[in-house]
Amino acid sequence: MDREAALEIVKKQLTEHRYTHTIGVMETAIRLAELFGANQKKAETAAIFHDYAKFRPKEEMKKIIIEQKLPSILLKHNSELWHAPVGAYLVEKEVGIRDKDVLNAIKYHTSGRPNMTLLEKIIYVADYIEPNRHFPGVEEVRQLAENDLEQALLKSMQNTIMFLLKKNQAIFPETIETYNWIILKEE
Amino acid sequence: MDREAALEIVKKQLTEHRYTHTIGVMETAIRLAELFGANQKKAETAAIFHDYAKFRPKEEMKKIIIEQKLPSILLKHNSELWHAPVGAYLVEKEVGIRDKDVLNAIKYHTSGRPNMTLLEKIIYVADYIEPNRHFPGVEEVRQLAENDLEQALLKSMQNTIMFLLKKNQAIFPETIETYNWIILKEE
Repeated sequence: MDREAALEIVKKQLTEHRYTHTIGVMETAIRLAELFGANQKKAETAAIFHDYAKFRPKEEMKKIIIEQKLPSILLKHNSELWHAPVGAYLVEKEVGIRDKDVLNAIKYHTSGRPNMTLLEKIIYVADYIEPNRHFPGVEEVRQLAENDLEQALLKSMQNTIMFLLKKNQAIFPETIETYNWIILKEE
Repeated sequence: MDREAALEIVKKQLTEHRYTHTIGVMETAIRLAELFGANQKKAETAAIFHDYAKFRPKEEMKKIIIEQKLPSILLKHNSELWHAPVGAYLVEKEVGIRDKDVLNAIKYHTSGRPNMTLLEKIIYVADYIEPNRHFPGVEEVRQLAENDLEQALLKSMQNTIMFLLKKNQAIFPETIETYNWIILKEE
C-alpha cells in the first residue's frame, strides 16, 4: 500500500499524539530495516499500522479476543497488551493487509515472542526507541540498536520487565519466554 | 522425625556453611509457622531438608530429572534450580519422608508455584531471610515477614527476578507464574 494512503487510514484511528509516535516508529523502522537488511516496505507498513487498534473500546477488543480465539490468557493481563493481536486481526479485516510478516510484526510488537523474525524485532525496537520516546534507559537502547538489534531488543525487554516489577504489575508470560529465548540461545 | 536425628542426616549432605544456613532456615521457619498458624513440626522438617540435594553432582540430578520425569524445562535452566525438586525426590527415597506438604515445600522452595500453600511460602521466605543472609533488600523482606507473609514472598520474588535480569540470566517460567498469581489475585 502507498505510504500516504496508509497514513491517511491510520490517522483516523489515532490521537494526534499517537499519530506523531507512529510517524516516529515508521521512520525508525525503515532505518533499522535498511541497517539490518530487512524489507523496508514491510517495515514501513507494519510500523504505520502497529497501533491501529490502540483506541478501540476495551469491550470491542475483548469480544474479538474471544470470538477469534486469540490466547485467552490475554484477558487475565493488562488490556494494554490487547491492541497488538487485535490490531493484527483488524488490519487484515478492515484494511485488507494479508502479508503474514507484516501482520505478525503488528501482533507481537508489545509482547514479543520466541523466535521473533527480523521484521518483528525491528517493529518492537522501533516502537521503543522512536525519537518521541523519552524515558530512563531509552538512550542506551538507541545506542545498542545502531549495532546489534538483538541486544537492543534484550535491553528494552529487561527495562520493561523491571518497570512492571517496580509497579507491581503482572508480566505477560510470552515476554519472559522471549527474554529467556534470547538469553538461553546466547549461552 | 526427631529434630536431632534429622539434623544428623542432613549434616552429612552439606558443607558447614550450608549447614549453618539450614539451621537459620529451620529457626526462621518455625517462627514463621508460629506467627502465621502453620504446622511447626512440618516447617521444621521441610526447613531441615530443603537443601538436602544441594551438593549432589549435576549429572546425578540430571539423571533423576529425566528418569523421574520431573519437568524437562528444568534442564534448559540454571542447575541451581534442580536441587529443589530433586531434593524432594531424594528426601522421600533416601530418608523415607512421605508427608506431601513437607515434600512440596522442599520441591518449590526455589521456584515457587501458583497457589503455594502456607507451608511452601514459609520455607521460601525463611530460606530468603534467615539470619545468615546478607544482601541488598533482605532487611526489607524481613520486616515484611513480620506482618504479611505474602508481601514478603512477593518482594523476595521481585528482588530475585531483578537480580536475574541484571545478570542476564534466564528466569524460570514458574517463578513468573507465581509472581503473576500474587499480583493478579490482589487486583
